[in-house]
Amino acid sequence: MAADTAYRDVRGFTEELADPLSAEDQTVQSMPDVSPTKWHRAHTTWFFETFILNRYAPDYKAFDPAYSYLFNSYYESVGPRYMRSQRGCVSRPGCQDIANYRRHVDGYMLDLIERGDLDDLGIALLDLGINHEQQHQELLLMDIKHVLSMSPLESAYATPAPGRAEKDSIEGCSRTGWTGHEGGLVRIGHDGGEFAYDNEGPAHCVYLQPFELADRLVTCGEWLAFIADGGYRRPELWLAEGWDRLHANLWDAPLYWDCSDGDWALFTLAGRRRVDPDEPVCHVSYFEADAYASWAGARLPNEFEWEAVACGMLDTAVGFTGQLDDPRRVHPRVQREAEMFGGAWAWTSSAYLPYPGFRPAAGAVGEYNGKFMVNQQVLRGGSVATPLGHIRATYRNFYPPHARWAFSGVRLAKDA
Amino acid sequence: MAADTAYRDVRGFTEELADPLSAEDQTVQSMPDVSPTKWHRAHTTWFFETFILNRYAPDYKAFDPAYSYLFNSYYESVGPRYMRSQRGCVSRPGCQDIANYRRHVDGYMLDLIERGDLDDLGIALLDLGINHEQQHQELLLMDIKHVLSMSPLESAYATPAPGRAEKDSIEGCSRTGWTGHEGGLVRIGHDGGEFAYDNEGPAHCVYLQPFELADRLVTCGEWLAFIADGGYRRPELWLAEGWDRLHANLWDAPLYWDCSDGDWALFTLAGRRRVDPDEPVCHVSYFEADAYASWAGARLPNEFEWEAVACGMLDTAVGFTGQLDDPRRVHPRVQREAEMFGGAWAWTSSAYLPYPGFRPAAGAVGEYNGKFMVNQQVLRGGSVATPLGHIRATYRNFYPPHARWAFSGVRLAKDA
Amino acid sequence: MAADTAYRDVRGFTEELADPLSAEDQTVQSMPDVSPTKWHRAHTTWFFETFILNRYAPDYKAFDPAYSYLFNSYYESVGPRYMRSQRGCVSRPGCQDIANYRRHVDGYMLDLIERGDLDDLGIALLDLGINHEQQHQELLLMDIKHVLSMSPLESAYATPAPGRAEKDSIEGCSRTGWTGHEGGLVRIGHDGGEFAYDNEGPAHCVYLQPFELADRLVTCGEWLAFIADGGYRRPELWLAEGWDRLHANLWDAPLYWDCSDGDWALFTLAGRRRVDPDEPVCHVSYFEADAYASWAGARLPNEFEWEAVACGMLDTAVGFTGQLDDPRRVHPRVQREAEMFGGAWAWTSSAYLPYPGFRPAAGAVGEYNGKFMVNQQVLRGGSVATPLGHIRATYRNFYPPHARWAFSGVRLAKDA
Amino acid sequence: MAADTAYRDVRGFTEELADPLSAEDQTVQSMPDVSPTKWHRAHTTWFFETFILNRYAPDYKAFDPAYSYLFNSYYESVGPRYMRSQRGCVSRPGCQDIANYRRHVDGYMLDLIERGDLDDLGIALLDLGINHEQQHQELLLMDIKHVLSMSPLESAYATPAPGRAEKDSIEGCSRTGWTGHEGGLVRIGHDGGEFAYDNEGPAHCVYLQPFELADRLVTCGEWLAFIADGGYRRPELWLAEGWDRLHANLWDAPLYWDCSDGDWALFTLAGRRRVDPDEPVCHVSYFEADAYASWAGARLPNEFEWEAVACGMLDTAVGFTGQLDDPRRVHPRVQREAEMFGGAWAWTSSAYLPYPGFRPAAGAVGEYNGKFMVNQQVLRGGSVATPLGHIRATYRNFYPPHARWAFSGVRLAKDA
Repeated sequence: MAADTAYRDVRGFTEELADPLSAEDQTVQSMPDVSPTKWHRAHTTWFFETFILNRYAPDYKAFDPAYSYLFNSYYESVGPRYMRSQRGCVSRPGCQDIANYRRHVDGYMLDLIERGDLDDLGIALLDLGINHEQQHQELLLMDIKHVLSMSPLESAYATPAPGRAEKDSIEGCSRTGWTGHEGGLVRIGHDGGEFAYDNEGPAHCVYLQPFELADRLVTCGEWLAFIADGGYRRPELWLAEGWDRLHANLWDAPLYWDCSDGDWALFTLAGRRRVDPDEPVCHVSYFEADAYASWAGARLPNEFEWEAVACGMLDTAVGFTGQLDDPRRVHPRVQREAEMFGGAWAWTSSAYLPYPGFRPAAGAVGEYNGKFMVNQQVLRGGSVATPLGHIRATYRNFYPPHARWAFSGVRLAKDA
Repeated sequence: MAADTAYRDVRGFTEELADPLSAEDQTVQSMPDVSPTKWHRAHTTWFFETFILNRYAPDYKAFDPAYSYLFNSYYESVGPRYMRSQRGCVSRPGCQDIANYRRHVDGYMLDLIERGDLDDLGIALLDLGINHEQQHQELLLMDIKHVLSMSPLESAYATPAPGRAEKDSIEGCSRTGWTGHEGGLVRIGHDGGEFAYDNEGPAHCVYLQPFELADRLVTCGEWLAFIADGGYRRPELWLAEGWDRLHANLWDAPLYWDCSDGDWALFTLAGRRRVDPDEPVCHVSYFEADAYASWAGARLPNEFEWEAVACGMLDTAVGFTGQLDDPRRVHPRVQREAEMFGGAWAWTSSAYLPYPGFRPAAGAVGEYNGKFMVNQQVLRGGSVATPLGHIRATYRNFYPPHARWAFSGVRLAKDA
Repeated sequence: MAADTAYRDVRGFTEELADPLSAEDQTVQSMPDVSPTKWHRAHTTWFFETFILNRYAPDYKAFDPAYSYLFNSYYESVGPRYMRSQRGCVSRPGCQDIANYRRHVDGYMLDLIERGDLDDLGIALLDLGINHEQQHQELLLMDIKHVLSMSPLESAYATPAPGRAEKDSIEGCSRTGWTGHEGGLVRIGHDGGEFAYDNEGPAHCVYLQPFELADRLVTCGEWLAFIADGGYRRPELWLAEGWDRLHANLWDAPLYWDCSDGDWALFTLAGRRRVDPDEPVCHVSYFEADAYASWAGARLPNEFEWEAVACGMLDTAVGFTGQLDDPRRVHPRVQREAEMFGGAWAWTSSAYLPYPGFRPAAGAVGEYNGKFMVNQQVLRGGSVATPLGHIRATYRNFYPPHARWAFSGVRLAKDA
Repeated sequence: MAADTAYRDVRGFTEELADPLSAEDQTVQSMPDVSPTKWHRAHTTWFFETFILNRYAPDYKAFDPAYSYLFNSYYESVGPRYMRSQRGCVSRPGCQDIANYRRHVDGYMLDLIERGDLDDLGIALLDLGINHEQQHQELLLMDIKHVLSMSPLESAYATPAPGRAEKDSIEGCSRTGWTGHEGGLVRIGHDGGEFAYDNEGPAHCVYLQPFELADRLVTCGEWLAFIADGGYRRPELWLAEGWDRLHANLWDAPLYWDCSDGDWALFTLAGRRRVDPDEPVCHVSYFEADAYASWAGARLPNEFEWEAVACGMLDTAVGFTGQLDDPRRVHPRVQREAEMFGGAWAWTSSAYLPYPGFRPAAGAVGEYNGKFMVNQQVLRGGSVATPLGHIRATYRNFYPPHARWAFSGVRLAKDA
């Protein structure tokens, strides 16, 4: 795709995602991890302004000098920044100001791209900025879901998708199948041809034991059995810190679930509805995923096992479907056999650590990934909220083990 | 004034106050004490709905049943309520919904008033609702000031008032005069003729020692001298809890003040500007007020001393001026001699306690005042943000001693 | 009493109180409000060293220079101090070191007293030091009770007193009588003849409404009726902050009470035993006291009402008894008619504020009382843990309204 | 060694370690991570009582039934337990009670061992109990060091070791040498012959890239250069969470270090003294270790690299020395060339995760290790405080990345 089309597409899609949201919706920060929609719209713009326009566009005039401070997320090398936990305290600039800011930066960016003024580094930064904005598109959806769930009105972000189609239930696989792998030396990581984040490389060898990987995600029905069997009341299933979190936060089901008279419902971006037992479970923490695996007599895969199986599947017919291209789809649908991508991110047992030989890029963009490599777990495979084209077999997502607001689910593994 | 005019006026004035604010501005809660503007607009409406329409309008149809939960501030008897500290997490209902809610309730209320369907209790509740809304008008201004101060843009709520007029500085009293009072038995509290809050009565006798009361509020210039003399660094001037608060919160000046290169500026609802040494100081805590009084070799008045002097002055020419009737006036102006009302609320040394014989009203409205009578200090006299007609010599405002976001200032007293 | 005898007595009695406690007992700080026993023993010594020896004994050699920092409680003028909440982190100096420190200071003090080297100020400071140490004797008992309650062993500090004597139950008044007072101007406060704390003066006039005061404290039996009637579950009885505290701390009975199979037991310094319905209730917060009074259709007295009735009663036969002179008595016994002193401190509705004309003493001892005059309530009358000779009709004790570890109880009042 | 000798030795050594400590020292918990000495003495005893006597000694009479609750550390399967953060609130049982408890259990245990009544599981549990107590011996020293550091007296636990010997400085290696490793498949983990913890197995293959490992720990002199070069002020060197911790806790040097007039001193168990630039640095967090490695242009080794080099070295002359066998040695001494064991634990870049095929033991002892496998980093090699005989090349210690009170240091690695 031409660079200008790619730029236009990603920028336009962010605005499409924000479009159903009122100014009030776009302002709220419902917990410290969440950012307001208008902040996402501004921060992705700030990224292009800071890393490309400030370097490549000598005539660039800042839209507002305060934005450099307001919309820096965590880049220490760029300068001071507004405290993350207070993003919801900022009413001004408002949504219209942010729209103007986006247009202002887009004008300069498209000029730059169309004039062909970007050198190799510039083109790499453009690619990074586009991928960065895609990442924030998923964050925007995760975050607004949390925001909307805070109101007793529980109104929807999107029109509900039509009721589960016949076809879905027919094709949905009712029993987990297991894909075997003989282990041994496997090549892991991105080889650097197309775009990838720095944390996906260098490619290197990892030695695996033989294992089996489930060919679909754990379903809500299976999770209901875990709950019914006392899954949230049996300490022997839990990591010690998970057990503490469970008590401190009164976890007794995935985030957004609630039970009334024995009926389980869940809040989705299309509103509240009954739990569908065939759908993948979503919005569980690593601690819950790990406890579930213990209960099921299995374990979580490590990220290398996952990648060894997924490698190459993205191009096949059974692979990646159901992402945001379907605009009515805002919740994972029932999975078909052998789907490795989409639906919900799979928690892995791997801590998020650098690959051998990893070096962050020089300068501020080097802060993109490396500095978070502690106290986080890797997730793989993308979710229903991941933009089309933004997922790879080598893609490493990561969250702290207690996080639940991502579209995070569970895929089991076991020793062969 | 006719009841319907009074109702229309107070309802209209709230909307006028909210008018300059964007949907984003009206949504933010910048700290737990602050409520979003749209919450104030809704809660004042809820008050009429809950205490009057639900009782007197048999045909009343609730605008939205969830609002009863969402916009209950603290009335336990009415039922459960949304957690106060999370009011800023609610994006829906939005500002337009609230506007519709207000119109809906206003329609029923005006019908009720015009039909004359209210009995004595109903009329008393209407009076209470009108006064309640006036109280929230001041809160709305206090709160939005804090919200706007959180953005680095620090943009204004209102057009700045014209620069201090010559006349102001000429009339402003440059030295504090002292009004003497011989003490003895004085009658305190409201006798119940016109409207007053329950906490202003019963009227009763209090025995006072002879004292003198300053005829104007402490000025910013005097406060600058306190700062320059180490006022914020000398523990002997401070109550122990105040000294702890000072350290925990790094207080070194009133809220909204900051110093750059030796120049002190302050944030007002008309934007940031230099500190005017002749204006009353504002946005100080009780702890600061008390420390200042110690430094000045004086003390704070108790609420009875204040009332003994103020009693009757509200009607006089030197009394109450400069309140919200002047729409450009959003910060205390330079005071003239012997002003007891307006400008900034005066902290008193009196803890907020019931008067002898005080009984809260029966039912939920009895929760209005009485249940807060602990760990608060009384303030007297109103401020620039107090609506015209909402102040009395017997009026008892109250805040915890560490609060600074009210328009609170200092008036000194001393033993005769 | 001769000064040296008084000094010897008070110093010896502290050591007697500490005597049943092991080194381990004396080291623990079970919550931030509690101080370790060995800290009390050291701090009372530090008081004499700092305010008397350092001024009047030119040849005085500090026992250890670090103690001046370690055992300063809150005197800012004396210099920096060890953080209060960390007193339980200090294992050294140990109990034996503190015993040596006490002997070291006692030697110098008795020399000074016996040589007659103290001027009027010195004698006043000696009196203050002796009263200060008596105050800490009660704190020592309050604190060690909390410490011992933390161990599941719940072992006793003292041998239990013999079972309630026949005589007790015979003399105990089973119904509350009410003492009437016609109100009007009453003289309040200490006139300065004998020793009193600075906060008890100046004596001054207060105007009271007619009222009645209960002639005994509320009993455990009455409290059980309050619990049974939902006292801890009815928000309409509670101050708002009290209701929040109740929920945050899961209060459902006085501190040290627990219920098993419908039987209420309580922990005393003589061990755990059943609740005796005729004994005064003890270890309740102001919030509980106030809620109880609302439930009982009465109110708490203000401190002036209490003093107006108690004034002069200390010398009479029905007055002060049962304090620490009886070494087996560590819990309030059943009261006789018209006892105003001892048993449990009575919470009053008065906030702890300065009397008109109050001026703290110059210098560091001026920090004794005045700087705590905010966010506290006054208690009157002394408790079973108050040393004999340390109580007066004008004595003003004070705690924050949520405190429960003092021997605090309830005496009702009502409007005449 | 015969089982009874091994038992006697480890039990006796704990008491030797506690011997220099007063009852007060043994009672304090100076932060939530720290346990009181007397708790360590009791908990190690509880371990034998709970897992061996309760199963194998039918005639066993519990010393005190409350101890089962009081001295359970974290074994959910055994029953409820006293809250960890409150261990310092328990004064009773005291040190003498604990000594009696130890003797009581020792009597039964030695009977059991000498009678040969233990089956294979029993012998394995005995081995586990002995190793468990050795682990607590190091914890006891770590903890009491923190406790003693809290007192301004800063008195010593042990007599200082004699000043650094001539021989030390001659043999100490002044420059880091690097041991190369060609990478490839290496065998990692314990094969199960002798005792090892469950987390050291199963043995398995790991594929390594070529690397070099420093032949000694980073020294204090090198750390001083890091400080002098702004190591604690340069965000680009730090993990994001580390940078936040640094600011929240005001880290500017290792724990126990302080600077006065440019001279750096540190607190050791032998008292406060100057920093010796040739000694290994100790008491740094993972975050500091990682930042230092970045600054030095190197990285931390992963745990497999460390083990690949250390494997087999424990038996050689240059290996393990200087541990607790020298009773005057309570701080890491200057290292000789190629020392891999002792001194200070080396932080590795490996998160603490299960080895492939890891299964915790059945029952409560299965809670020993596995349930902590999240949010922790592995440390290798033992420290000066590790008991002789308690270290192995496969030994995996672990702490959260912010922990600093362990004897934790830094060994660098780099890619070949």
